[in-house]
Amino acid sequence: MTKYRIYGDRRSGNCLKARWTAEFLNISYEWVDIDVVKGDTHTEEFLALNPSGQVPLLVLPDGRALSQSNAIILYLAAVHGGPLAPADPFERAKVHEWLFWEQYSHEPYIAVRRYQKAFLGKRDEDLDPRLLANGRRALARMALQLGATPYIAGERLTAADIALLAYTRVAHEGGFDVEEFPGLSRWIARVERDLGIDVREAA
Amino acid sequence: MTKYRIYGDRRSGNCLKARWTAEFLNISYEWVDIDVVKGDTHTEEFLALNPSGQVPLLVLPDGRALSQSNAIILYLAAVHGGPLAPADPFERAKVHEWLFWEQYSHEPYIAVRRYQKAFLGKRDEDLDPRLLANGRRALARMALQLGATPYIAGERLTAADIALLAYTRVAHEGGFDVEEFPGLSRWIARVERDLGIDVREAA
Repeated sequence: MTKYRIYGDRRSGNCLKARWTAEFLNISYEWVDIDVVKGDTHTEEFLALNPSGQVPLLVLPDGRALSQSNAIILYLAAVHGGPLAPADPFERAKVHEWLFWEQYSHEPYIAVRRYQKAFLGKRDEDLDPRLLANGRRALARMALQLGATPYIAGERLTAADIALLAYTRVAHEGGFDVEEFPGLSRWIARVERDLGIDVREAA
Repeated sequence: MTKYRIYGDRRSGNCLKARWTAEFLNISYEWVDIDVVKGDTHTEEFLALNPSGQVPLLVLPDGRALSQSNAIILYLAAVHGGPLAPADPFERAKVHEWLFWEQYSHEPYIAVRRYQKAFLGKRDEDLDPRLLANGRRALARMALQLGATPYIAGERLTAADIALLAYTRVAHEGGFDVEEFPGLSRWIARVERDLGIDVREAA
């Protein structure tokens, strides 16, 4: 094997982060389709690769495996160069700050509400109201930053934009209106353009 | 100002991560006590430092501020040397993997159940049952790794051990029994010893 393999579910923003990063950095990879809802992450074969039973999973050409979407994009950025992970320690730390914030204060509300509405078909009245309130707080926090800088961690595109794009661009599927938050739509379009994401492709 | 400042709540494991790392690396710092429950993170003064309203917060000697516990420990490890952040890209990526896993799959169950029981005084029957189930799953995942390696990301102490120690060592306050998970108690004692944590100090 000479290529990376990325195991992922195409409907999962976390998995798209790995794919977008590989494509942005012109890294050759094989995509292995995983259906999370059908339980593909809990087969014996998959658990042997990732005992945590989560996608995305990056398998290196030498067979070593790495999980956690944000760890994967940081790794690809570090090994394959490019501007996604700044060399300056504080600038890099700010990228890390946003990546951890994304997983703790954004994804658990915005991605989860989208999953429950768009994938599980739940009605608004059956959803935990904290998903909407905390998701809106996260979007407001992003808008505050994007009022000061064109990208989320400063003047340039970084791994933090890739991570935050994943679920912000489909937030409407979770019942969020990004138009309420100044600058968010323009940032989404800017990062999609930078990454060369075909906005017509299935979200 | 010539020292780092760390804003934190002493009862918060996320805040202790920053303190332990600074002390392990012999970094001089001033600790600023913040009471999360009393709302100290939502004063105008604090929000000017961290618009996300979260602790811990590291303020550098030059006044720049960094939030997110795991971003803080990675930054201190990167700038002040030491073995906590391995230089090898894949080894470092595995540390990142565990740090993101900690924030997504461990802290939201183990720290949150502890907070609700020990700080808010909630009774077991009033807690979301997923906190116990998912917290137990996280402890089992750690035990699986610690059956293979003495530290969570391999043969040596890294930032991942610091992050995971924070709430694993007080998991019993959330109603978890670490003794059920082989190797966990020994790992806790090992990392506490390495970090020079006084086990008699208030958890």
